[in-house]
Amino acid sequence: MHAYRSHTCADLNKAHVGETIRLSGWVHRVRDHGGVLFIDLRDHYGITQVLADSDSPAFAALEKVRAEWVVRIDGRVKARDAALVNAKIPTGEIEVYATGVEVLGAAEELPMPVFGEVEYPEETRLTYRFLDLRRDTMHQNMMLRSNVVRWLRNAMWDQGFNEFQTPIITASSPEGARDFLVPSRLHPGKFYALPQAPQQFKQLIQVAGFDRYFQIAPCFRDEDPRADRSPTDFYQLDIEMSFVTQDDVFGAVQPVLQGLFEHFGKGRKVHTDWPKIAYRDSLKWYGSDKPDLRNPIKMQDVSDHFRGSGFAIFAKLLETEGNEVRAIPAPGGGSRKFADRMNAFAQKEGLPGMGYIFWRKAEDGTTEAAGPIAKALGAEKTEAIRLELGLAEGDAVFFLGGKAEQFESVAGRARNEIGRELGLTDTNSFRFAWIVDFPMYEKTDEGKIDFSHNPFSMPQGGLEALNGDPLNVYAYQYDLACNGYEVISGGIRNHKPEIMYKAFELAGYPNSEVDKRFGGMVKAFKYGAPPHGGCAAGIDRLVMLLADTSNIREVIMFPMNQRAEDLLMNAPSEPTNAQLRDLHLRVIPKEA
Amino acid sequence: MHAYRSHTCADLNKAHVGETIRLSGWVHRVRDHGGVLFIDLRDHYGITQVLADSDSPAFAALEKVRAEWVVRIDGRVKARDAALVNAKIPTGEIEVYATGVEVLGAAEELPMPVFGEVEYPEETRLTYRFLDLRRDTMHQNMMLRSNVVRWLRNAMWDQGFNEFQTPIITASSPEGARDFLVPSRLHPGKFYALPQAPQQFKQLIQVAGFDRYFQIAPCFRDEDPRADRSPTDFYQLDIEMSFVTQDDVFGAVQPVLQGLFEHFGKGRKVHTDWPKIAYRDSLKWYGSDKPDLRNPIKMQDVSDHFRGSGFAIFAKLLETEGNEVRAIPAPGGGSRKFADRMNAFAQKEGLPGMGYIFWRKAEDGTTEAAGPIAKALGAEKTEAIRLELGLAEGDAVFFLGGKAEQFESVAGRARNEIGRELGLTDTNSFRFAWIVDFPMYEKTDEGKIDFSHNPFSMPQGGLEALNGDPLNVYAYQYDLACNGYEVISGGIRNHKPEIMYKAFELAGYPNSEVDKRFGGMVKAFKYGAPPHGGCAAGIDRLVMLLADTSNIREVIMFPMNQRAEDLLMNAPSEPTNAQLRDLHLRVIPKEA
Repeated sequence: MHAYRSHTCADLNKAHVGETIRLSGWVHRVRDHGGVLFIDLRDHYGITQVLADSDSPAFAALEKVRAEWVVRIDGRVKARDAALVNAKIPTGEIEVYATGVEVLGAAEELPMPVFGEVEYPEETRLTYRFLDLRRDTMHQNMMLRSNVVRWLRNAMWDQGFNEFQTPIITASSPEGARDFLVPSRLHPGKFYALPQAPQQFKQLIQVAGFDRYFQIAPCFRDEDPRADRSPTDFYQLDIEMSFVTQDDVFGAVQPVLQGLFEHFGKGRKVHTDWPKIAYRDSLKWYGSDKPDLRNPIKMQDVSDHFRGSGFAIFAKLLETEGNEVRAIPAPGGGSRKFADRMNAFAQKEGLPGMGYIFWRKAEDGTTEAAGPIAKALGAEKTEAIRLELGLAEGDAVFFLGGKAEQFESVAGRARNEIGRELGLTDTNSFRFAWIVDFPMYEKTDEGKIDFSHNPFSMPQGGLEALNGDPLNVYAYQYDLACNGYEVISGGIRNHKPEIMYKAFELAGYPNSEVDKRFGGMVKAFKYGAPPHGGCAAGIDRLVMLLADTSNIREVIMFPMNQRAEDLLMNAPSEPTNAQLRDLHLRVIPKEA
Repeated sequence: MHAYRSHTCADLNKAHVGETIRLSGWVHRVRDHGGVLFIDLRDHYGITQVLADSDSPAFAALEKVRAEWVVRIDGRVKARDAALVNAKIPTGEIEVYATGVEVLGAAEELPMPVFGEVEYPEETRLTYRFLDLRRDTMHQNMMLRSNVVRWLRNAMWDQGFNEFQTPIITASSPEGARDFLVPSRLHPGKFYALPQAPQQFKQLIQVAGFDRYFQIAPCFRDEDPRADRSPTDFYQLDIEMSFVTQDDVFGAVQPVLQGLFEHFGKGRKVHTDWPKIAYRDSLKWYGSDKPDLRNPIKMQDVSDHFRGSGFAIFAKLLETEGNEVRAIPAPGGGSRKFADRMNAFAQKEGLPGMGYIFWRKAEDGTTEAAGPIAKALGAEKTEAIRLELGLAEGDAVFFLGGKAEQFESVAGRARNEIGRELGLTDTNSFRFAWIVDFPMYEKTDEGKIDFSHNPFSMPQGGLEALNGDPLNVYAYQYDLACNGYEVISGGIRNHKPEIMYKAFELAGYPNSEVDKRFGGMVKAFKYGAPPHGGCAAGIDRLVMLLADTSNIREVIMFPMNQRAEDLLMNAPSEPTNAQLRDLHLRVIPKEA
């Protein structure tokens, strides 16, 4: 017989009754039923019930084992009494009568239990991650992640993509975030950088003639901690294709993600219509460039109804160029109580409040509009608003006014809140949307023109478009939103050196600066570059959506804590003097 | 029609004759046949011949294109004349008569050609890697690597392994080589390290209850440059399993690699017998712990024949305890010319020379032994050696004497040389062998006991064995050799804290040092650790063997040069002052 096991803890069933078998695993739980010991033995695959009574030669040894010890059990498979069958687990029809036991790995007193998944502080969980990961939920999350990555790779291969690995110790790639640096020992005073993304390499791969690239790529950004983000590294499904338009990229990606969510979504509905929504429309309708379309609420500009109206606050506000009034319809929200709650929400978000109208049944049985705005606006305009928004008795509408940039994100959050509170958001589904037509440039607070998003995207209209007003230029750049999260970002790249130089010039960068910062890539574009584009999907984010968790540390095997520390392995730590000497570095004391 | 192509450059054949099509790709070669232009258009998939004569509206534009420009061609598919069919390529039966052309990406004058694969200095190739990678051999190497990685992943999944990603920004893991350090901005003065291997993490994954782990893992070692090694990072197929013996690991790995080499070996024979050879035997028989078994030569200890013999040099040498005489049989090497050549080889390797005997046909038709050793040794002993080694007329034997450690590696190289020179080594095959039973400890030059290889391996015989002479302890540690290279290294791990402390104590490390250096792992072992073991296979090495190259930069997409510089992306480079300030670091000037 094998040294450790003849079967896994998920293998045995009625067909094995009477067999002599060997199992190894962790003691999940011990119960002492007066002279009969029951042990739930757990391994990667499942749980098997083991028992021993005082007739068993293993009894004395089994009396000593404790939770989370690793033991080898020799025994005989017995059928359980019909009344004791556990239909929830594959081994629920049998139990194993132990005749021998060997302790393979004892355990000290546990700092946190595994059985029962009791809540524990995250610092404890991370310090004893090897115990935390034994909990069923974490085990399942890690297997989900592993299977998601596997599935994605196969889906990409099936679509004719090839996986290539790009350098991890490489050059600084100024992409917006801060690089992690790696001092070079062989070149004292010089540093490598860890890639924020393989952006330049995947574009070089296209210039090198490999048509369809993908990689589950580690990315590194030295960012300040945030709850839903890994403070050091994260993985993305990185994709790039040659000789493609934006629609080709969408066509390659949609079946992959659609399939992924159908396969791992645990029955949640995956909507197959992935609308393309212009960036500006997304902000207008949903107050966000990553809208949650499970929520049917669509905001509207209702400025015309308020312009010159009796509601003085908005009427006055609309006299200033660029201001507007946005309506958030709230079907089913037609009560003062709900209106007040949303008003309080807006105040918590830092706004003076949200105006509202709601429609209720009047004493005479007709529908009446209620709230101070309705009164000030008058019946006719109020009714016009109701009709435009398609609202009825029992519904409400909320208003925010001013410059769109100033209220839009609060409006978006209010929309989420209304959708959730009123049960309008179908939480049991996934809804995707491509957000397209991002503006290439924006005006900074100092009035300068700067790239609004990715400087490497091709401007729509090419070189010609760059000769007009930069603020009217759209880029071939896109995001994929799902349930309120950005899951993909990408673009058709600017592969023509002359357009790239011009695009940077508009943002105030001379050619020499472009050559200095993106030298490798610009050089490559001068030796026969194909049109190309692609995107990147955050793996952690995809798994979080599928696992229905908002804590990124629940889907990473060994995450840093929020202060970017590894509590189990003790990182970061003080270097030795020899290490610093090798690197020709000196640490500047804090007081310096 | 699609903006860039209706077909790839490998798609078109006789069935498409007459169709109007669109292709995009690189201009591989232009030939001007007096008024008719021929262009070989190349993309990732293949090559299609495009032509235009002066009747074509595309002619003028095509006259201007040069090698490596990216163009879009509109045209009609024509059958080639039977005499002009090129059976070597899938599109060889047709050509495309161009009616339109658009330049998608022009190219400046090329620093190196793509067509024809002319030899170029490696520095040029790395500086213009995007051109270098367009060459057919490099393109094939990269595709081979991509497919090997894909194949390995599928093979591992099929065997029930799960892929998990382990941290890249993590703690220093003292495993023999030098760490790359990453300064922490959030914790000034502290550093992360890049993992030399995910060794501790994969063991923690076992302690966390995930049974069969694998990963194509990036590994980082700050080592001094060597021709066949990447100076910064490399990839390994990393494997770990729970509840296994050494044979279980072998049983999991062999079908994967056997299959890999059969699939990608281009018809080279993959021997299915993978012998297990003890480390000491491997040194004795092959002079190496990574023997090339394609070479049938097996060395032997022939000391007994020389002890007290007439060949004074060896007789004297054997009077010293620990010295021996090793024979390298050389079937077919029986000529003075060959013997002299091998003697010269040994001198080049720094030895005084190699003694030899060879057997030739004497003038009387019998077999006679020739060479000074035969004379000194006398006919009887010479004949005994011949019989023991199974040699005959036309064969030779070479001798090396002294301490095994001093001559063994030269003996191994001489064995390789003899095998190659005499055509004994079947270069058209792959031969694997497991090297097992590595000694746990060795005596250092200072007479101290130290680990001879991996301190984390389980000593054979467990705790008990550690109470005897450490130099007699073998470890459950193993390598896999293939054709003279080490392709895998691994072990059954020491998962018991008490055995680990004892093992380190013997090597002079107190418990406190063990806790300090391997704290996370040792702590984990105290909370229920399963017996486990695994191995790691070098991806670069596997691909090099399959691609039949000894230059690692031929199988890496964007390699560093041998001075650990990326000539294309310009790494490493000087950091900005702001970056150094963020990290609280100062560079010590060289003269300091």
